[in-house]
Amino acid sequence: MTINYQQILDEIRREVSPFSDEGKVADFIPELALVNPAKFGIHLITTEGDRFSTGDEDEKFSIQSISKVLSLSLAIKFSGEKIWERIDVEPSGNAFNSLIQLEYEHGKPRNPFINAGALVVADMLISNLAEPKEDFLEFVRNLADCPEIDFNYKVAQSEKSHGFRNAALANLLKSFGNLENDVEQVLDFYFHQCSIEMTCRELAYSFLFFANEGKILHKDEQILTQSQIKRLNALMLTCGFYDESGEFAYEVGLPGKSGIGGGIVAVHPKTYSVATWSPRLNEKGNSVLGMRSLELLTTKTGMSVF
Amino acid sequence: MTINYQQILDEIRREVSPFSDEGKVADFIPELALVNPAKFGIHLITTEGDRFSTGDEDEKFSIQSISKVLSLSLAIKFSGEKIWERIDVEPSGNAFNSLIQLEYEHGKPRNPFINAGALVVADMLISNLAEPKEDFLEFVRNLADCPEIDFNYKVAQSEKSHGFRNAALANLLKSFGNLENDVEQVLDFYFHQCSIEMTCRELAYSFLFFANEGKILHKDEQILTQSQIKRLNALMLTCGFYDESGEFAYEVGLPGKSGIGGGIVAVHPKTYSVATWSPRLNEKGNSVLGMRSLELLTTKTGMSVF
Amino acid sequence: MTINYQQILDEIRREVSPFSDEGKVADFIPELALVNPAKFGIHLITTEGDRFSTGDEDEKFSIQSISKVLSLSLAIKFSGEKIWERIDVEPSGNAFNSLIQLEYEHGKPRNPFINAGALVVADMLISNLAEPKEDFLEFVRNLADCPEIDFNYKVAQSEKSHGFRNAALANLLKSFGNLENDVEQVLDFYFHQCSIEMTCRELAYSFLFFANEGKILHKDEQILTQSQIKRLNALMLTCGFYDESGEFAYEVGLPGKSGIGGGIVAVHPKTYSVATWSPRLNEKGNSVLGMRSLELLTTKTGMSVF
Amino acid sequence: MTINYQQILDEIRREVSPFSDEGKVADFIPELALVNPAKFGIHLITTEGDRFSTGDEDEKFSIQSISKVLSLSLAIKFSGEKIWERIDVEPSGNAFNSLIQLEYEHGKPRNPFINAGALVVADMLISNLAEPKEDFLEFVRNLADCPEIDFNYKVAQSEKSHGFRNAALANLLKSFGNLENDVEQVLDFYFHQCSIEMTCRELAYSFLFFANEGKILHKDEQILTQSQIKRLNALMLTCGFYDESGEFAYEVGLPGKSGIGGGIVAVHPKTYSVATWSPRLNEKGNSVLGMRSLELLTTKTGMSVF
Repeated sequence: MTINYQQILDEIRREVSPFSDEGKVADFIPELALVNPAKFGIHLITTEGDRFSTGDEDEKFSIQSISKVLSLSLAIKFSGEKIWERIDVEPSGNAFNSLIQLEYEHGKPRNPFINAGALVVADMLISNLAEPKEDFLEFVRNLADCPEIDFNYKVAQSEKSHGFRNAALANLLKSFGNLENDVEQVLDFYFHQCSIEMTCRELAYSFLFFANEGKILHKDEQILTQSQIKRLNALMLTCGFYDESGEFAYEVGLPGKSGIGGGIVAVHPKTYSVATWSPRLNEKGNSVLGMRSLELLTTKTGMSVF
Repeated sequence: MTINYQQILDEIRREVSPFSDEGKVADFIPELALVNPAKFGIHLITTEGDRFSTGDEDEKFSIQSISKVLSLSLAIKFSGEKIWERIDVEPSGNAFNSLIQLEYEHGKPRNPFINAGALVVADMLISNLAEPKEDFLEFVRNLADCPEIDFNYKVAQSEKSHGFRNAALANLLKSFGNLENDVEQVLDFYFHQCSIEMTCRELAYSFLFFANEGKILHKDEQILTQSQIKRLNALMLTCGFYDESGEFAYEVGLPGKSGIGGGIVAVHPKTYSVATWSPRLNEKGNSVLGMRSLELLTTKTGMSVF
Repeated sequence: MTINYQQILDEIRREVSPFSDEGKVADFIPELALVNPAKFGIHLITTEGDRFSTGDEDEKFSIQSISKVLSLSLAIKFSGEKIWERIDVEPSGNAFNSLIQLEYEHGKPRNPFINAGALVVADMLISNLAEPKEDFLEFVRNLADCPEIDFNYKVAQSEKSHGFRNAALANLLKSFGNLENDVEQVLDFYFHQCSIEMTCRELAYSFLFFANEGKILHKDEQILTQSQIKRLNALMLTCGFYDESGEFAYEVGLPGKSGIGGGIVAVHPKTYSVATWSPRLNEKGNSVLGMRSLELLTTKTGMSVF
Repeated sequence: MTINYQQILDEIRREVSPFSDEGKVADFIPELALVNPAKFGIHLITTEGDRFSTGDEDEKFSIQSISKVLSLSLAIKFSGEKIWERIDVEPSGNAFNSLIQLEYEHGKPRNPFINAGALVVADMLISNLAEPKEDFLEFVRNLADCPEIDFNYKVAQSEKSHGFRNAALANLLKSFGNLENDVEQVLDFYFHQCSIEMTCRELAYSFLFFANEGKILHKDEQILTQSQIKRLNALMLTCGFYDESGEFAYEVGLPGKSGIGGGIVAVHPKTYSVATWSPRLNEKGNSVLGMRSLELLTTKTGMSVF
């Protein structure tokens, strides 16, 4: 059975449009609030290299928490299973209570995709990289096959001036001995990592190696082993959407990761990688149209991991 | 590629045997503590009807929490999506805090596989079935294609006399208005449901419809729709193993459900259903050898949902 | 300096009257919701035996949680300091989270005035009294010097049919091994104890021994030792008003205890005991006019324990 | 009845000496761990100006959290009741969970004596004082009638380098909008305030105004109104000893405050102020010999507020 992805993306675009006023743009940092809420794009690339897209798929947006999957990939490349001594792999329950959970669990974050976990990953990268920010950026550029990908320094700065909760988390981690480097340095790396800007096209390609058994398509480069890929896909499925991870698994049924910039990326193992972007978020912090689009995608293709 | 399941099961049995003294048998109710801790069995059945097995696969054991998937299936058959008004689909975070989470979330259980959620499902069945216990048993017998499946009344009675924590949960649910029937009646149904005894062979067949697009193999009976099956598989993957659900997804990568009787059942969508039994549990309440066996199974076959 | 208590009570009555529409009557059980919300009474008795009063001071009302001080007194009479092996003496933080705290602290209630603590006290009395309910009633009648004091069986029955949260607490205590007797029996005793009805006059006299160094005034009967009285007064001051105990200490500055029937009793060590009644409650469950009246009393007399 | 305080202090010293090896010196910052654990002193001063003492009552120690009462007094002097819009007056339940409680209660600390509350008080002082640290020091010197009282800059620096948990709290407060000034500045003030060193003699005199209706003895200076004093005494009694406040009220029955430097100060309203010092702490962070000494003091004098 051949799937006509382009026709499906076109249908999705039509079918989600009645909901394009739902949700609101993230406004916790001024820079992010400036985005045009009407933007909407999808880009899907198969492991055969076929590309399909619709809407504003070629416009840059802030990938925010989606970067956590990329930083984790790099940390695993360096340190392998050892990283799980400092971070767990369990879903986190309530989004709001990261500090609470972190205190009860003595500074070991529940998983690498909650902020506390991503801060520990950032700390690991700082310890392992000669030029942490530059080297991480290079890693992302290579995955995306796009040398112009960059931080948005204004966004990074803006997060720094408003990121008191992340500073609280980093200090709490430090108090439990779960940060090796200075709190300031870890926060600086983390805010930069989140400020990376990419298009749907670039994002979909960057995540294609999760669908392609760990290899970058059309390159002879194995980023992670098949076993590592399987595990990261499992983590994305169970923990990728904050307090709505169960909902996403239930409705969509694919590993994926969202960011409060309105992006979502998802992969169908061995088949495709897809990125959506629409800035209006639901109350759990996930893109309204992105969630709907991916639900339609798995329904229309009849293909989820389940 | 053809997989030699029998050879793999034989290898698994050999490879897990060095760990057969790890963990301890559940002893919170006297009846369950009487089981022989050395028991170990696996039964796998494909959607083609091929069967493979090893060890004590034909011996009855208490399915305990595995029954929650079966009661949920019956509730969904009756009430469809409506049941999610009273139960959520999110992983629960910490196992120990079911009461705490239930109080913070005003009596709406996080998912149908924590005890609070299963009590609400039991309440729904009582409201919808003429003879709740008998009708549920009939449903299970039909799925397992085995008319002798029965409750263990001694185990049910034993749980009743010791189940103060479940009684606390049921009363708390009632105080929030999330039980329609009497607390006593709900607990009675729940303790009976958990006391059902099955063999690995029966259990694997009972869950085969989750791998077989909702249909009982070799019968012309559609239990749930394909869409419902996809969602239940997602739920099992994200919530099936208490506080170790993330670990199971990460290590094994299949939808599944464990019980403190030492059983685990898992499905590979469209491919197979497998049941393992070994009574020694790890500290999270999941069978030590069962977890290891299933991890080996997905590694050796190279097949998980990811 | 002689204090004109009668004049002060008259002033208080006038000064609180503008606030007589604030708050609402407890309605969690139908029987209690029937009370006339306009009722208001005060009765003060000094350790010299002088009595002062105003308003509906001679009308019966449901003492509810105020009974917890009396049951605790009887338990201490029997078991002395030993009871603190099963209950702590610390303020409880948030009212709403009794179940949560109880779970985190492994079934040892924070203090004897939260419901969990009072249930453990009830359990102790059942273990120590031949006819628990009758013997406790006799103890209260003696303190109040009033043989007609009785349970309101309708209220007790009503609480039983609606007391799911208390049943949850009792079952949780039982699951931690902190109840010796049957859950049902403990709840039955507790609901009866709370249903006792008294007037302000009777209540003030019942608590006078806390101001009178442990002795019932005009009787030669030492109920508790001076040291025990000091400690119970401390407990009332730190824990007597649910989540508003700090507020009461801060505003009023006397040991006391409130009940959701609208009663409050407070003592000035060595000086007086005072009971107020007004059924409208603030959001923390304490009588609005009662709190105001006692604040005015300590301000106008210039006498608190601080 | 005349009380022979000197004889009582001498007895206390004898009676507590068998316990002088219990507990351990605070070691969370290196500077504090250097103290001689065998130190023990008491100084009591009555509102008549009579002084009694024993042991190392004239040796300086780090007052630590005891400073929170002095900073609060100064804040109330400036801002009166308005400060309670940003801090509550309720006991805090568990010591360990300050971050948790703060998050649940949206950044409003439970009381001014937990660290979060003291940080908000520090923030208020910074907003109100021209030279915050110097002016606060001046206030303390005046209360103690001792111009050489000073910060220990080494201790302040040491706390700064290790105070990640306080930094976490301050950042969390800032994220909830409950700090006006920079996180760094608030922490700097707070660490200095805690580093103040005083002797038992100086400390007892500094707190005498709480027993002397708000006036410094032998000076014509009213620090706080009688009503404010009553309220602060109530706060010390309900919240002065971390998670052991109920225990202190129950065993000792006086308003007081402890510090992890091993100091405790307590007041008997209208009668005396007393300071003890002994560096070994129990597991709740309160001085073992200090707690015992004050319990003996109220037992032997027969005088507590209850």
